[in-house]
Amino acid sequence: MSEKIPYKIYLEEHEMPKQWYNVRADMQKKPAPLLNPATLQPCTAEELGNVFCDELVKQELNETDRYIDIPEEIQEFYKMYRPSPLVRAYCLEKKLDTPAKIYYKFEGNNTSGSHKLNSAIAQAYYAKQQGLKGVTTETGAGQWGTALSMACSYFDLDCQVYMVKCSYEQKPFRREVMRTYGANVTPSPSTTTEVGRKILAEFPDTNGSLGCAISEAVEKATTQDGYRYVLGSVLSQVLLHQSVIGMESKIAMDKYGITPDIIIGCAGGGSNLGGLISPFMGEKLRGEKDYRFIAVEPASCPSLTRGVYAYDFCDTGKVCPLQKMYTLGSGFMPSANHAGGLRYHGMSAVLSELYDQGLMEAVSVEQTAVFEAAQQFARVEGILPAPESSHAIKCAIDEAMKCKETGEEKTILFGLTGTGYFDMYAYGAYNDGRMSDYIPTDEELQKSFDTLPKID
Amino acid sequence: MSEKIPYKIYLEEHEMPKQWYNVRADMQKKPAPLLNPATLQPCTAEELGNVFCDELVKQELNETDRYIDIPEEIQEFYKMYRPSPLVRAYCLEKKLDTPAKIYYKFEGNNTSGSHKLNSAIAQAYYAKQQGLKGVTTETGAGQWGTALSMACSYFDLDCQVYMVKCSYEQKPFRREVMRTYGANVTPSPSTTTEVGRKILAEFPDTNGSLGCAISEAVEKATTQDGYRYVLGSVLSQVLLHQSVIGMESKIAMDKYGITPDIIIGCAGGGSNLGGLISPFMGEKLRGEKDYRFIAVEPASCPSLTRGVYAYDFCDTGKVCPLQKMYTLGSGFMPSANHAGGLRYHGMSAVLSELYDQGLMEAVSVEQTAVFEAAQQFARVEGILPAPESSHAIKCAIDEAMKCKETGEEKTILFGLTGTGYFDMYAYGAYNDGRMSDYIPTDEELQKSFDTLPKID
Repeated sequence: MSEKIPYKIYLEEHEMPKQWYNVRADMQKKPAPLLNPATLQPCTAEELGNVFCDELVKQELNETDRYIDIPEEIQEFYKMYRPSPLVRAYCLEKKLDTPAKIYYKFEGNNTSGSHKLNSAIAQAYYAKQQGLKGVTTETGAGQWGTALSMACSYFDLDCQVYMVKCSYEQKPFRREVMRTYGANVTPSPSTTTEVGRKILAEFPDTNGSLGCAISEAVEKATTQDGYRYVLGSVLSQVLLHQSVIGMESKIAMDKYGITPDIIIGCAGGGSNLGGLISPFMGEKLRGEKDYRFIAVEPASCPSLTRGVYAYDFCDTGKVCPLQKMYTLGSGFMPSANHAGGLRYHGMSAVLSELYDQGLMEAVSVEQTAVFEAAQQFARVEGILPAPESSHAIKCAIDEAMKCKETGEEKTILFGLTGTGYFDMYAYGAYNDGRMSDYIPTDEELQKSFDTLPKID
Repeated sequence: MSEKIPYKIYLEEHEMPKQWYNVRADMQKKPAPLLNPATLQPCTAEELGNVFCDELVKQELNETDRYIDIPEEIQEFYKMYRPSPLVRAYCLEKKLDTPAKIYYKFEGNNTSGSHKLNSAIAQAYYAKQQGLKGVTTETGAGQWGTALSMACSYFDLDCQVYMVKCSYEQKPFRREVMRTYGANVTPSPSTTTEVGRKILAEFPDTNGSLGCAISEAVEKATTQDGYRYVLGSVLSQVLLHQSVIGMESKIAMDKYGITPDIIIGCAGGGSNLGGLISPFMGEKLRGEKDYRFIAVEPASCPSLTRGVYAYDFCDTGKVCPLQKMYTLGSGFMPSANHAGGLRYHGMSAVLSELYDQGLMEAVSVEQTAVFEAAQQFARVEGILPAPESSHAIKCAIDEAMKCKETGEEKTILFGLTGTGYFDMYAYGAYNDGRMSDYIPTDEELQKSFDTLPKID
């Protein structure tokens, strides 16, 4: 290997970003405002402040400040598990025999196992600053819940997590990680909230759903003194915090004179992709540079590639603000796709708007092909990736193979959001040949679109 | 924080060690030789070559070369997941309010989840060089099996793992990681070997044991063309490969002018501790510097603190060479301690000899206290440690608290061998208050000592 680029680029502490980058500041056309579900009018800061922490509400509504200082305490916490490595995938390149240069930003080297901790620590910090007792949230597969538990433990905040009942029972490991960090984990639906009791009365045998868990967490936050609700994706504040991924990537690449041609990320709610591409997108928006951005979503839950751009509810319980976004309809029930983190019916408003403006591409990939790519990656790069992250791997490999055909030496950067250590049932299904693909029919999607709220 | 030492010290690629350090070269009195179980005479290279790869036999018997070159291909593989970070535990120090300076070398940032990969890749490399088809091994909790699967997958070698049956059934996740890396995982005892069939005929309901799995793996290696047996700990070759941990630690500390007063590691077979302390011990043996070394073992399996220094079988099946070591007797059955990697009746011959010469101390700690330390560490340092590694954490915290009493600003270095992501049942037991401690009685130990082979 004659190249001078090391396998892994770690920034020095003094090179780490001290500010988050707010991509909305550089967007000429901004994302549409959040709407109050009761009035269908744009949410005021006061209304949002009943649910979210004050400082986070400010960040959610801030469309003008390009940079926002990362508080000292959060910078200190970041130093515990960041900078994350920017890895040159030499072994993958060699295996694929491609002229493409492949880099990935690996966010899995922390106990939460993913990038979620970047925003969890920020949200916990602002809750602490506000003098709150604790926060509530929901979690599906458990990555966000784990990240939040770690963050709350660090700041000595109470952490109440509503975990979708089937995950609570089928994935006891993440539940125990959360408990080890002192979180209070309740299977949802539960008898601890009015909405939970109502659902249980109607459907006593339900396995729960993310929508229901959100409704319980929001109810709990708004009915207990000193609590607020926090969310791990979708919101613009979360993309802001996650911009640390893109900032670090850009600083590392600039340091070595590397310019990516294509930047790829998996997209569920959009927090990882949004964070990774933000500073690069900023350059594109300001006309300084051009990049191709690709969002990769599961064919089973294709909000960008097959959804509509419309106002919709963020949760199935319809208690949260409405957001204009690419959506499959809040009633859309994705199949039991193992990539839990990508099973969201909608998409970040920022990414939706960027996609609508043609500044970003999107592709969808099928599950079996994703696990094939994951296994190939694991075997040569030594990291067993999360199913979610593997969507980006699949796309990166596809792009690298195109380079092999054309002989182009493109530079590809993708986000490796996390590890798959808690997803071994899914890997087991793949190893046993028990994994299936599922693509919703046009009729199914149309039926779901029909339930969208009628808002112009 | 006014200190200039960063939270994490990563060596640059060019600073990484290019040689392993062989501590035996600096020992005046060498470890006693391995004995052939049939003849009770020192094993010849030829005899060992029937079981182990040729180059590894040379390393096993090499007591004179102080440094051994790390082959280029292994150095390249190391670059994929090494250097591992040397972490300054600022948050733990603050939490303990101790004047001690605590550092840990963290080996868990790879999919095998531990330091085991350092030796697995070396052993797979030499097997490949010898033109072998594959290797066989046994695994209990699965960390070694996972590491070996990754290494074999990288070099395209067949990997046959005998996994203790109860672990195979109770820990399906590690099994699936191994399968994802293409390993052939067989629950032991099995019908694939003569020894397995014999045991099954006698005890059809057995849950298996490490001793039995070793016997099956050795039989399989010696009865198939083109196969050899590999082992993840205890052997001197493994300590040699693991010296990369200590070498990196020392280079990083020297770079910042840090000198540890106390170096602490958990000890099962001794590979991690031996690797961590090797280069420091070398300085002590050569009279250049002095350090305190502390081996930490579980009170439930106290080979150094309560065992005898004698020749014993390395496996319960008595098919492997005998070794002079601190041992509880190969028939000792440790209680169901969750720290699977430390449930070994014996200890590395190198470490046993160093301990016998008074160059190293040993302490034993109880399980509940270990998990208490693990949880405390996880909450402030953000890493959920493996139960094995947590033995070292417990001891490091104890030493730091002594500094608090005396006001001494000692510098403590400990080995954090891995993560506990696949040990959540044990954490669950701790979280639920269902964890118990167990210390063998003197009578139990004496009964086990009585079964030791009589060799002078």
